[in-house]
Amino acid sequence: MATGAIVEALPDLLVEPLVRAALLEDLGRAGDITTAAVVPADAHFRGAVVARQPGVVAGIATAAIAFRLVDPAVRIAVERPDGSPVAPGDAVLRLDGPARAIITAERVALNFLCHLSGIATATAGLVAAARPHPARITCTRKTTPGLRALEKHAVRAGGGVSHRFGLDDGVLIKDNHIAVAGGVAEAVRRARRSVGHMVKVEVEVDDLDQLAQAMAEGPDAVLLDNMPPEILRRAVAIVAGRAVTEASGRITAATVGAIAATGVDIISAGWITHSAPALDLGLDAG
Amino acid sequence: MATGAIVEALPDLLVEPLVRAALLEDLGRAGDITTAAVVPADAHFRGAVVARQPGVVAGIATAAIAFRLVDPAVRIAVERPDGSPVAPGDAVLRLDGPARAIITAERVALNFLCHLSGIATATAGLVAAARPHPARITCTRKTTPGLRALEKHAVRAGGGVSHRFGLDDGVLIKDNHIAVAGGVAEAVRRARRSVGHMVKVEVEVDDLDQLAQAMAEGPDAVLLDNMPPEILRRAVAIVAGRAVTEASGRITAATVGAIAATGVDIISAGWITHSAPALDLGLDAG
Amino acid sequence: MATGAIVEALPDLLVEPLVRAALLEDLGRAGDITTAAVVPADAHFRGAVVARQPGVVAGIATAAIAFRLVDPAVRIAVERPDGSPVAPGDAVLRLDGPARAIITAERVALNFLCHLSGIATATAGLVAAARPHPARITCTRKTTPGLRALEKHAVRAGGGVSHRFGLDDGVLIKDNHIAVAGGVAEAVRRARRSVGHMVKVEVEVDDLDQLAQAMAEGPDAVLLDNMPPEILRRAVAIVAGRAVTEASGRITAATVGAIAATGVDIISAGWITHSAPALDLGLDAG
Amino acid sequence: MATGAIVEALPDLLVEPLVRAALLEDLGRAGDITTAAVVPADAHFRGAVVARQPGVVAGIATAAIAFRLVDPAVRIAVERPDGSPVAPGDAVLRLDGPARAIITAERVALNFLCHLSGIATATAGLVAAARPHPARITCTRKTTPGLRALEKHAVRAGGGVSHRFGLDDGVLIKDNHIAVAGGVAEAVRRARRSVGHMVKVEVEVDDLDQLAQAMAEGPDAVLLDNMPPEILRRAVAIVAGRAVTEASGRITAATVGAIAATGVDIISAGWITHSAPALDLGLDAG
Amino acid sequence: MATGAIVEALPDLLVEPLVRAALLEDLGRAGDITTAAVVPADAHFRGAVVARQPGVVAGIATAAIAFRLVDPAVRIAVERPDGSPVAPGDAVLRLDGPARAIITAERVALNFLCHLSGIATATAGLVAAARPHPARITCTRKTTPGLRALEKHAVRAGGGVSHRFGLDDGVLIKDNHIAVAGGVAEAVRRARRSVGHMVKVEVEVDDLDQLAQAMAEGPDAVLLDNMPPEILRRAVAIVAGRAVTEASGRITAATVGAIAATGVDIISAGWITHSAPALDLGLDAG
Amino acid sequence: MATGAIVEALPDLLVEPLVRAALLEDLGRAGDITTAAVVPADAHFRGAVVARQPGVVAGIATAAIAFRLVDPAVRIAVERPDGSPVAPGDAVLRLDGPARAIITAERVALNFLCHLSGIATATAGLVAAARPHPARITCTRKTTPGLRALEKHAVRAGGGVSHRFGLDDGVLIKDNHIAVAGGVAEAVRRARRSVGHMVKVEVEVDDLDQLAQAMAEGPDAVLLDNMPPEILRRAVAIVAGRAVTEASGRITAATVGAIAATGVDIISAGWITHSAPALDLGLDAG
Repeated sequence: MATGAIVEALPDLLVEPLVRAALLEDLGRAGDITTAAVVPADAHFRGAVVARQPGVVAGIATAAIAFRLVDPAVRIAVERPDGSPVAPGDAVLRLDGPARAIITAERVALNFLCHLSGIATATAGLVAAARPHPARITCTRKTTPGLRALEKHAVRAGGGVSHRFGLDDGVLIKDNHIAVAGGVAEAVRRARRSVGHMVKVEVEVDDLDQLAQAMAEGPDAVLLDNMPPEILRRAVAIVAGRAVTEASGRITAATVGAIAATGVDIISAGWITHSAPALDLGLDAG
Repeated sequence: MATGAIVEALPDLLVEPLVRAALLEDLGRAGDITTAAVVPADAHFRGAVVARQPGVVAGIATAAIAFRLVDPAVRIAVERPDGSPVAPGDAVLRLDGPARAIITAERVALNFLCHLSGIATATAGLVAAARPHPARITCTRKTTPGLRALEKHAVRAGGGVSHRFGLDDGVLIKDNHIAVAGGVAEAVRRARRSVGHMVKVEVEVDDLDQLAQAMAEGPDAVLLDNMPPEILRRAVAIVAGRAVTEASGRITAATVGAIAATGVDIISAGWITHSAPALDLGLDAG
Repeated sequence: MATGAIVEALPDLLVEPLVRAALLEDLGRAGDITTAAVVPADAHFRGAVVARQPGVVAGIATAAIAFRLVDPAVRIAVERPDGSPVAPGDAVLRLDGPARAIITAERVALNFLCHLSGIATATAGLVAAARPHPARITCTRKTTPGLRALEKHAVRAGGGVSHRFGLDDGVLIKDNHIAVAGGVAEAVRRARRSVGHMVKVEVEVDDLDQLAQAMAEGPDAVLLDNMPPEILRRAVAIVAGRAVTEASGRITAATVGAIAATGVDIISAGWITHSAPALDLGLDAG
Repeated sequence: MATGAIVEALPDLLVEPLVRAALLEDLGRAGDITTAAVVPADAHFRGAVVARQPGVVAGIATAAIAFRLVDPAVRIAVERPDGSPVAPGDAVLRLDGPARAIITAERVALNFLCHLSGIATATAGLVAAARPHPARITCTRKTTPGLRALEKHAVRAGGGVSHRFGLDDGVLIKDNHIAVAGGVAEAVRRARRSVGHMVKVEVEVDDLDQLAQAMAEGPDAVLLDNMPPEILRRAVAIVAGRAVTEASGRITAATVGAIAATGVDIISAGWITHSAPALDLGLDAG
Repeated sequence: MATGAIVEALPDLLVEPLVRAALLEDLGRAGDITTAAVVPADAHFRGAVVARQPGVVAGIATAAIAFRLVDPAVRIAVERPDGSPVAPGDAVLRLDGPARAIITAERVALNFLCHLSGIATATAGLVAAARPHPARITCTRKTTPGLRALEKHAVRAGGGVSHRFGLDDGVLIKDNHIAVAGGVAEAVRRARRSVGHMVKVEVEVDDLDQLAQAMAEGPDAVLLDNMPPEILRRAVAIVAGRAVTEASGRITAATVGAIAATGVDIISAGWITHSAPALDLGLDAG
Repeated sequence: MATGAIVEALPDLLVEPLVRAALLEDLGRAGDITTAAVVPADAHFRGAVVARQPGVVAGIATAAIAFRLVDPAVRIAVERPDGSPVAPGDAVLRLDGPARAIITAERVALNFLCHLSGIATATAGLVAAARPHPARITCTRKTTPGLRALEKHAVRAGGGVSHRFGLDDGVLIKDNHIAVAGGVAEAVRRARRSVGHMVKVEVEVDDLDQLAQAMAEGPDAVLLDNMPPEILRRAVAIVAGRAVTEASGRITAATVGAIAATGVDIISAGWITHSAPALDLGLDAG
């Protein structure tokens, strides 16, 4: 069903520090005392990371880096790149090397992979449910602290697109800004004056009146928050292609089709990063 | 219903670096360009972080530190310490100070608080469902990379207890170890010889035969993996108080009562840290 | 003459780590051995950082943080916020406190302040020379490694605007990309498909043919590289408001007026960040 | 004309963290989105970093490390080691490898290389202008925050020598110290008593009276600040080889010859590190 | 005499950052200026790290990593793994490679190796003196700041066992805790209630009365502090195998035999980590 | 007897990161679980760090920072600054504040203080034994990895002086350098040519022949390694004040007097940093 989108991996320079930190968090001050005591130094392990649920995988690089950081002698073959759909039993990553290293790195590798694949799978579910409408699915800044780059990447692996990455690479004027600025039009004007030519300005509106005020200032995008489909449809008509239209609020697989049918360009959902359940994958010998 | 357990906050020395990193992740290279453009420097904000769902809160310190790091002039009053149950509309944290700082820190503060409160709430749900049996709820090492200390703390706020923190502070012999070591008894013997007097040794067993072999070596705890209640009950009888008994596998609010009724000491669930949905809290003015 | 633009300081959270690192670079492993040997612990210093040249100041916060980090007991009064024009003799920052701390921090404080004020002054010179045309001055990614956020901020203090901050917050397709992609139109098409709705796409063109091909794909901005004024004028006419026009290449105070007169929206100069001479400021007692 | 001095590269252990940080500064949170979208993963690039101006190169290692860190598969051949004079068109570094990596690392590599080569070139200009006198050219602590080790290295590549590296590895008593200490003789005495046998003591003097007082205490070096050549000549006669003599203040290619002719041992200039224009080098295909 | 115990090396992921930091501490801002000036770039060195005293080695990995980090071209052969006894003249590590790298890394490599081997040797001395009694030797948290993981590892190489690693992985109730808690029994009860099933609870007692109170609460271990052998013997009898018994206080090679003879399980000594003299090893050519 | 020398504290900017790292090493992932469980949040502690042995204290700032970092509410009064002699029972630092914070920070504070005071005490012992000769006591680069700045400071507190801090701030030509360079004279010549005017050149010599060769090149200092007093005396006569003379090798309180009597300027001992036993200090209530 959900199919995802094969995407380029993030640069190792960005990913490796996160994986290293996660390994150190797990190794603590004395390393893997169980494996050191129980597994002989020369024991060999051959196996694979295997899906136990259907979904879309993301974060293969994080898993590969985890095994490699513990021991560069582990040989790794990627069977399913980020964005691949998987069925139960599908091998995602094959491993062959020192048993100690593979067992020590296993949990960290899976913690990344299951978490990111969960996000990709949730995104792919919304993408599938929004078809055949052209609306694209995106996420928000409601991400897990420290993992935003990986989670945004997982959304793309699920077939979604990125929203702004943080507070500095796009203007998004929200209700609290508007309240303090004294109106939506004034807020958009101030933002326009302040930013450079590579920064887009988006403004959140709660109703069609606010939308009309906002459009008068020429924003690049409008965030139509918590509007029912019939209002969204009227909002799309008002905007009439002069700005990107984004719908948000209570987006689920059940509701996203009707929202996409209104003609909005973008549909954003916070839960795909903050509440998507992990996808179940495990390490199997053999 | 679920009530949680008031717990001591983690030391600021441990928490502040995580919050600082999350703020820098969001501020990027140029800071909050929307707020700088739209909100006057002298604007004031008074409001509260308010629950929009029932649950148990955890991570109040992370939120407080987020606001304080952006501007020490923000005055903060904690209304509900970690472990408190909340109902929709309950104020958790009151804020009073420069509008810019509060709006800039809002998302990072909520990202921590909603994530950790989600974990506390999921834990509290299991704790409630396991009553009146004495079994305690614990989590696993299936945590979000980088956030383990906070997530383990959230489990305690939900009324659960900690398992080992990482690979170095407890021995947990699993199926892959046993396969390589050539048997459960040999694995426990090796672990016993290797570790110091402050480290406990737990071993995972899949059936009652393995349990008998394991018990012959005197482990501190046995992890009874994926056993149905009737087998668990027999396992508890076999152990007969000579070790701590831990049940794991497919633990949900629906199943946990029957499992607790078997007399096991500990019930562990991975999903309360890796798949608990975020608890919905938001920042309201006024 | 050059007047700059009063701008908000960058968040302390971004600036302090840079200043702290610079102090540690200077203190080395033993601290300020001259001051420890020569200046009594109870000696007091009162004085000011004073301009010795006309220009525009930027980086006041870096200097203030340097003194504060060495000793929080130093009292600091900002006389000229970032973006202020200064004449020789103008006090920019007044200091009053322990002589040791002020003398120890002096060089690091001035190294930041003179460097950033040099950039602001260079920018302000171009801004003044481009008047009364509406073209705005911007910088490039040709910045000093490690100091990009501060240098972009200094450009804004000089009255300029920011370009993209890095490789990730805007698409800028350059000659090497076009060569590999097989043409400017194809390159823009690929970029459009790839990025989200908050990311702008700019493309560099070397002549009017390329410009025509690029415009067919609807870029947000075109970078008109190294074109003489008469060609720029024709380019502006071709674009006809459908994209932002940016001129670059050999921009100096002598040439910028003629380029601004062509009607381009943005003029970018690499040298204002990589080769602007430091503005001379010094610490005077009294 | 200016020829520089072939020097040993700094240890990779010192240089790599700076280059890594600069790459992360440029990659931001999502990496090079232009190259990922536009350049195919299998595209190959062969080319060279080429001088566009005459000068002396420094920082070859920084550039090589930048390409290597983005992709170890990039093959790199150094054509001109640090300290080599270059003419326009000279290839400095040849590159052969994945196009994506080379294009992504290009700007960071050049930002280091152009900045450091600018410093080497400025230094070499002073060195040439001071010939045939034996005076050596040195820099000060007026360096770019975070880059001091690299900039001091670039001065050596330009044919200069190092001054102290920071506040901790040499005593340099300046006017503010003397004012607080109650006289130049007392200041030198205090410093002498305080430091170990491997630390040199230099003292700044403004006139010949101060010089005489200072010399009575046997400093290792005297800094003759802002003295015209005729005074410098008398100062050199007074010192008579008992200390190293260093001249500073308004040192340019036009003035340095006359100053060197006075017989001073060392001539220091702050601008060669804080205000030297970048040397123009670029990446050419082919 | 003292023989140590061959132990697994700590994971490189834990050790490398410490060695890297020590090298940077020694290289400072300009690297090894003596070697750069005096040793030709193509000079070769072949030699070995050789023991000059009898003892037990620990920290071989730290030394090997030091040489490898300075130059991966240094070939390294380990002759004596951690825990090996050595006699004067025994080669511990053979080196073959660039002379510069080996000379530059020498001191850092030896600083780690001599320090850790000193700890292993001191531990092995106590282990030997405690024979043939079954008591095991352990260390405390009185370790050198920053080096605890390495020092605990060295204790194991000397034939000892680990105590808890820090404040978080075991409960150890001491006199100050008891004073505040209002009694030893209450303190143990509070600890029991608070911790999870993988954490052991140990309590320090000063006399047999306190011991009796403590035992009533079922601690996992009791720390018998500063008791003479005859009291220890009675304490062991009181505990009667219901808890691990640990003796501490004034443990030396002269006293440890008599203490071990009392039947205690564990003997802990702070001085083996905080005051063990370094073992003398040096780098010899040839 | 041994009296030390009151010295300025190192800058907090240098010390705090070391103390913070040591606290995090001890707090691990869950903080002080014993104190959290046993000590009430509102318990108060008043007490002092007290000497249990005679000696010289150093590192008071490290201890004070440890308590302050855990809780800024702890009030701290320094009774004995670094360099003070202490007798058993002398209070060094008084503390008054939350019991939890003081008990949690106690071990880290003492680990620094006892280690550094041990070094100061060892140094002071040599200083006393060398009287009334003018020779000064210094240390080497045989320091504990990561703690060099603190240990060099402790040597000064003991009445000693600093040697070079690392490989970069002084030239010290040793036997391995000389072997590769082809002679002591050539080695000194190469060093002289390479370094700037603020760097001193010292050379190690093993006999009087080598000394004569070295002196012909005008080194700043000569290291007379492992020479008996009668040879040292002749060496001092040969040098005749033209260079600083430093004696090293087997320096103890028993031998240092005879060595000082030879007239050498400096006596260096590695063991005062690598093998000095910790000075016993403890935390007492009341």
